Amino acid sequence: MKVIVIGGVAAGMSAASKIKRTEKDAEITVYERGGYLSYGACGIPYFVSGANDDYKKMIARTQEDFSKIGIATFLHHEVVRVAPDKKQVMVRNIENGNLFIDSYDKLMISTGASPVIPPIKGSDKKGIYSMKTLDGAIALKEELASPDIRNVVIVGGGYIGIEAAESLSETGKNVRVVEFQDRILQNYDPELTDIATEEFKSLGASLNLGERVLEIAGGERVQSIVTDKNVYPADLIIMAVGVRPNTAFLKGSGVALAKNGAVIIDREMRTNIEDIYSAGDCAEVYNMAMQENAYLPLGTTANKCGRLAGVNMLGNHVKYMGTLGCSAIKVGSLEMAKVGLSEADAKRLAIDYGTVFTKAPDHAHYYPNHTLVWIKLIFEKQSKRLLGAQTIGKKNAVLRADVLAIAIQNRMTASELGMSDLCYAPPFAGVWDAVHIACNAVK
Amino acid sequence: MKVIVIGGVAAGMSAASKIKRTEKDAEITVYERGGYLSYGACGIPYFVSGANDDYKKMIARTQEDFSKIGIATFLHHEVVRVAPDKKQVMVRNIENGNLFIDSYDKLMISTGASPVIPPIKGSDKKGIYSMKTLDGAIALKEELASPDIRNVVIVGGGYIGIEAAESLSETGKNVRVVEFQDRILQNYDPELTDIATEEFKSLGASLNLGERVLEIAGGERVQSIVTDKNVYPADLIIMAVGVRPNTAFLKGSGVALAKNGAVIIDREMRTNIEDIYSAGDCAEVYNMAMQENAYLPLGTTANKCGRLAGVNMLGNHVKYMGTLGCSAIKVGSLEMAKVGLSEADAKRLAIDYGTVFTKAPDHAHYYPNHTLVWIKLIFEKQSKRLLGAQTIGKKNAVLRADVLAIAIQNRMTASELGMSDLCYAPPFAGVWDAVHIACNAVK
Repeated sequence: MKVIVIGGVAAGMSAASKIKRTEKDAEITVYERGGYLSYGACGIPYFVSGANDDYKKMIARTQEDFSKIGIATFLHHEVVRVAPDKKQVMVRNIENGNLFIDSYDKLMISTGASPVIPPIKGSDKKGIYSMKTLDGAIALKEELASPDIRNVVIVGGGYIGIEAAESLSETGKNVRVVEFQDRILQNYDPELTDIATEEFKSLGASLNLGERVLEIAGGERVQSIVTDKNVYPADLIIMAVGVRPNTAFLKGSGVALAKNGAVIIDREMRTNIEDIYSAGDCAEVYNMAMQENAYLPLGTTANKCGRLAGVNMLGNHVKYMGTLGCSAIKVGSLEMAKVGLSEADAKRLAIDYGTVFTKAPDHAHYYPNHTLVWIKLIFEKQSKRLLGAQTIGKKNAVLRADVLAIAIQNRMTASELGMSDLCYAPPFAGVWDAVHIACNAVK
Repeated sequence: MKVIVIGGVAAGMSAASKIKRTEKDAEITVYERGGYLSYGACGIPYFVSGANDDYKKMIARTQEDFSKIGIATFLHHEVVRVAPDKKQVMVRNIENGNLFIDSYDKLMISTGASPVIPPIKGSDKKGIYSMKTLDGAIALKEELASPDIRNVVIVGGGYIGIEAAESLSETGKNVRVVEFQDRILQNYDPELTDIATEEFKSLGASLNLGERVLEIAGGERVQSIVTDKNVYPADLIIMAVGVRPNTAFLKGSGVALAKNGAVIIDREMRTNIEDIYSAGDCAEVYNMAMQENAYLPLGTTANKCGRLAGVNMLGNHVKYMGTLGCSAIKVGSLEMAKVGLSEADAKRLAIDYGTVFTKAPDHAHYYPNHTLVWIKLIFEKQSKRLLGAQTIGKKNAVLRADVLAIAIQNRMTASELGMSDLCYAPPFAGVWDAVHIACNAVK
């Protein structure tokens, strides 16, 4: 079996590795546009800030490692066309411009996503970065090392923007986040973002909500950023307004794409065309909580779905159970996490829902240094079945969201989880855990 | 409805409060042998050591609080006989010795358990304590404040013994644990206790395993403890070799007791006699993992089952889903937890099982200060269904056991949990969480 994998980061290398582990004779070729394989892109903000000074730590396995197990990888190689009728791809060697044809029995599309750069005046100036590829991160970090870079403006207050701001505010730069919406971390409900915003402000970064960026001003290089309300000095700009699936090369291939360009796949990671599979940030994914496909570009899902694509490319029919969109972020001394539906999701899906928002100590209040964990639950009004949860607190908020995620996945009701056995000792929990207290507040 | 509750700590006050919240007119009388109500006995080691210097913090609600909501409580009152045929109890006022009769419509037995004091020579000397009641803890703490108390010997290396040793080793006393078995924390499997033992030794406490205590020597007061191998100086001894249900007063009442004296109850907390309910450390409890009743004296279960007893005393028929024996302990800088079956449990139940024992970083290895989490899984060999888990590590080991507990409760297989969505951000987890890694090691 000859397998071609387009894109060698999370999903692609998970598929390749799974296939090679199972079928030693499989001939696997990976084409990666960038200069690095198999890295944890989620670590980029911490690498850029210097919390981690060695980008090699983010690389799970190198080209050499893959070569040893018999997976051929080509860096700086971009697939520019897919021809499913001939089972061929056209590849461009980015370094010398040469084009060549390769053929496959099974094809994996795992090209990831690219940051959206808004088409505003000045967006082609030097000094504009994003936080998506390791190549880009290395360049960004080099530039940030210069003392001339004082004012860093981050456009976008979602996960990437806030992580970037949080990390960079530790480096002594003047950091400013400009967000078009009226609050940060929009995928959380306001009860949670209110708390996160207070904490964010305490980090010393500036935050401008409800401002639309109109223009990037300067000469060859950025000097300031112009919004509909103000002008802010900017020696460097980080764009974090979202990502777009890297699927332009599929135009004309017949591979079905969603409205936003993401590859449409079934729960076995199959596209609409036989022998072509896809997973990761370039594709949709089945959302278990919404019971529909969604675009959720997350590293966890990319790794799981990539592995599963590998399993199914070997001739199996294993279905992905689906994601709950579980995700987390650190904001200053706070950790926050979200699983399943938010209240906004429940509204959009026209579900008859209820919510509770509770706080409880993360461990017995008589044991030193307890902190508070806030939990918001979204549940089906009639059945009290849990649909979603959001947590925030200084300690052990994220893992409590994991407990809630497994409960949601198993369609538990609030009262079932509220009486479930959880571990207790005074340093770790209350005799009624924060999770119990939230569930038992559901009436 | 007239309700009598015998024993006013965890299960008893949970039942009383639940009834009063639901049925305002219920007449509830609580008889408590000790001097305090509704306290978190699990906090005693930390109170004795001084980590918490105010015992009042351990009291959830006082006599006054209960009085305000219309629950009559009598401290230092012991029920000495139950007469189900007349629906009466005989009560002794411990302070003046007076006996009187009270009658009930519904009776709750929640008398807890008492520490076992081994019947060895010298066990009646002064200076022997246990860690079970708040009254006892206050006395113990007073005595420990004396500089004359240098050498403290703890008999028993289970949860209470190790918690006591850990707490007291922070007070500067010479602490020694003598354990008859060849390892501490016997309810965990050896892979875990090996790690815990290393950590325990680093705390500076002495540990003598495989030694049987033969005698307590001294004058009126303890001076040393004599084992089958050695003699150790002891200014104070803490007995922590287990507990025994406080049910002697039920002799002749007709209430069915298990071999160890625990009240036998069904999943609605009903005893064999109509209108008599029981929960907490004096009773058995349904163990979901073992699918049988067990004696598991834990505060979490006492609170849940107590509340449920209250619900059912109001005429309902709500079944307790059962416990998984979830429990946790801090040993030095390590946290450890156990849920469901241990390997030893699986053996005893003649289950065809398999195990894995894995370690993984608690968060992305490229984010600063990661530590390791070890996870042991016990699973049904054929189906790969998860039966039990034990975790140990410096950070976030206990809450991962909670994730596993909810999975076990929902009868998930290792491969299901291994592909389940969990929250990820570099400061909190790996892209494959430690829980995933353990599950995916199951073959």
